[in-house]
Formats: sequence, C-alpha cells, structure tokens
Amino acid sequence: MKSLPQSLKKISHFLQRLPGIGEKTANRMAFYFLRIPEGDLMEFAESVKELKNKTRMCVSCLNLTEEDEICEICNSPQRDTSIITVVEDVLDLLSFEVGNIYQGIYHVLHGKIDPLNNVGPDDIYIEKLLKRVQNGRLLKEIILATNLDMEGEATAMYLKHKLQELQKRRKKKFRITRLAYGLPMGANLEYADYMTLKRAIEGRSEY
Amino acid sequence: MKSLPQSLKKISHFLQRLPGIGEKTANRMAFYFLRIPEGDLMEFAESVKELKNKTRMCVSCLNLTEEDEICEICNSPQRDTSIITVVEDVLDLLSFEVGNIYQGIYHVLHGKIDPLNNVGPDDIYIEKLLKRVQNGRLLKEIILATNLDMEGEATAMYLKHKLQELQKRRKKKFRITRLAYGLPMGANLEYADYMTLKRAIEGRSEY
Repeated sequence: MKSLPQSLKKISHFLQRLPGIGEKTANRMAFYFLRIPEGDLMEFAESVKELKNKTRMCVSCLNLTEEDEICEICNSPQRDTSIITVVEDVLDLLSFEVGNIYQGIYHVLHGKIDPLNNVGPDDIYIEKLLKRVQNGRLLKEIILATNLDMEGEATAMYLKHKLQELQKRRKKKFRITRLAYGLPMGANLEYADYMTLKRAIEGRSEY
Repeated sequence: MKSLPQSLKKISHFLQRLPGIGEKTANRMAFYFLRIPEGDLMEFAESVKELKNKTRMCVSCLNLTEEDEICEICNSPQRDTSIITVVEDVLDLLSFEVGNIYQGIYHVLHGKIDPLNNVGPDDIYIEKLLKRVQNGRLLKEIILATNLDMEGEATAMYLKHKLQELQKRRKKKFRITRLAYGLPMGANLEYADYMTLKRAIEGRSEY
C-alpha cells in the first residue's frame, strides 16, 4: 500500500478542493470521518446532496435563502428598506446580523472587482444593484461595506462612481457612505500600521 | 435571518467536528460547497455513506484496508515479516510507505498512552501487539516508532518495558529499537532546541 484506502482517498480528494485545505490536513480529516457515528455520516451525506436543491438566491438582495423568492431580511416588516448595505458576500452580511447592529437591508455582490484574477465589474452583481437603486423609491442611503483590502476599496470606488452617475442622470438623492476607517477595538498603537493610524487621526472626533 | 440557511448550517455543524475546524472556517467551507458541481457533491456524499462499510482493520497489523482480512502490506511476499514497526496511527504508517524506505511490516496502535485525556495502555492496541509477538516465530526486531512528543515517548517506554518482560518470560530474543533522535534535514543550529542538540551530540557518528 503506497497510499490511503480508496474510500478514504475519495473523501480526502474532495476535501482538498475546499479553501485552505492541503493534502495532509485532508488526509487527517478523512480519518476523522471514520470515528464519526454512522448515523451522523448518513445525515451529513444527505445534507450535501440536498444543498443545491434547497438553497437559492433572494431575488431582491441576492442573499442566500431557503425561502421561495424573497429572503427573511427583505421580507421582514421590521427592516428599514430605505437603507441598503452593499457587501461582498453572505458571510460579511452575517457579521452584521450576528451583532444585531443594523436594521436596514442588504445587497450581496457575490465577489469583488479583482483584475488580477480576471473578475471585472460585469462578473459580480453590480448591474443588479444599479437597477435596484434606479427602480426603488424612498432610498435614503447606500452604505458601501466591501472589505478594506485593495480589491474591496477598488470595488467601493467603482460603485461610488456609478451611483453618482445614476444620481445625476435620474435626479435621485441619497447618501453614499463608506464604513469608518480607524483602529479596531482593543488595538495597540505600537502594532498599528501607518495607514490605519493616519486614517484614525483624520477621522478623530470630540471626546 | 440571524444565521446561515438551514442546509448550510447542517454542513457547517458537521465540519466543525473535524479536528482544527472552528465555526468561521466551517462556515466558509460550507459556502464553498455551493460552488462545487452537483455531480461531484453527489459522488462525495456517496463516498461518505460507503466509508464505514468499505474500510476495515487488518486482522494482523490493524492497518486500515479495503481487503477482507489481511492488508496489502501483511499480504505482500516482498515484505520482511521478521521486523515490526510500531506506529501510533495509519497516517504515521503512510509516512514510511510514501518514502519507500522500509521493507518490514507494521503494528498500528491507534493511539498513544495519554493520561491527561484518559487514554491508558488498555485503550490502545498494546495487548494485541504483545500477543502477536508472543505467537509469532522468527521475529528479529521491533522498531518503536511512536512520536517524539511526551505521550509518544511514554508509550515507547511502556512498550519497551512490556516487551522486555515478555522476552524474559518466554525466552525470546529480538532487538527492541527506537527511531534515531537528532537534527532534521536542513536544520539550522540557531533554531534547534536544547534537547535536540543534546541528543544530536550524544548520537554523533564518524564522518
């Protein structure tokens, strides 16, 4: 035997396709599958099979949902539909939801503009956002909440430009905002990077 | 929505049971499942279901195998059955096999003595090794190849003691050896720990 038994190898190969999982980790994980009770394995296998059937995109905000058309957030009467936060993906949306810090609705781009990896503006759901803004009434604010890395910043810049164009053309008025830059909670100045410090000084407020 | 859609959550919960996978990583992985083609997901689900049916322990060395009783290694006529290497688990065995550096056979303990986690000598396959040694003919050497951490060392010590007892009682003669200690290939003395250096000096050889 030069390698794993075939059935373990199949599982390991699949796991290696997941982000951040190399061959050794995948092998260790596959072995761990053997220790999990049969019933739980069966249940997991069923969930994997059903996954794509059950999960859809919300027709309005593109969040993932098991509802038929509109996700729970867009459908909730408690949500303020005049504020739309634009995020890169569903996990970013969840970060806001976990803290219960935001009562508006969302738009999920499902990616970011990333020329090095051949992802342009047409490859993510930007057009859909612009249409949504164009057709929507009572829109007060769009919060650009793409990540603060290079691609996220580029995506935010592009969106700002496109939204401003649309404001002029359609004579619409709404705020276009971006998440605040600054030091994170518990931060140590000694280890903060130059750009973050610069932004933290620029954005200082009365105390 | 305060969390993931149910079907993603199920997958994420399962993945969190694997070693080294926390909630955030599991969520990210579960999302990645959505990008994998339907056919591959189905195939993976089948492999998971079949895993326990197909995989058995070799009745002799306790290696994992898809054969009926004896694994390929024990069954191979090219293997020297007079040398047994004792390893903690199947992944350790594979490390030897990948390099093609060893022609003997194995014994897999499926664990190590680890009192802090309530694993005693009776919880791993030590008794089975002793019986195998007792009943086997033409045994020349047992190589103790448990890991070099604290639990692995304790396991090796315990095995040595038990095997010596057995040698006296049954008047058997075979070598009991341990993997060499020393500096790994490509090591930098500056970063080597004190104990490894001490062992490397003690074990020095003519050059």
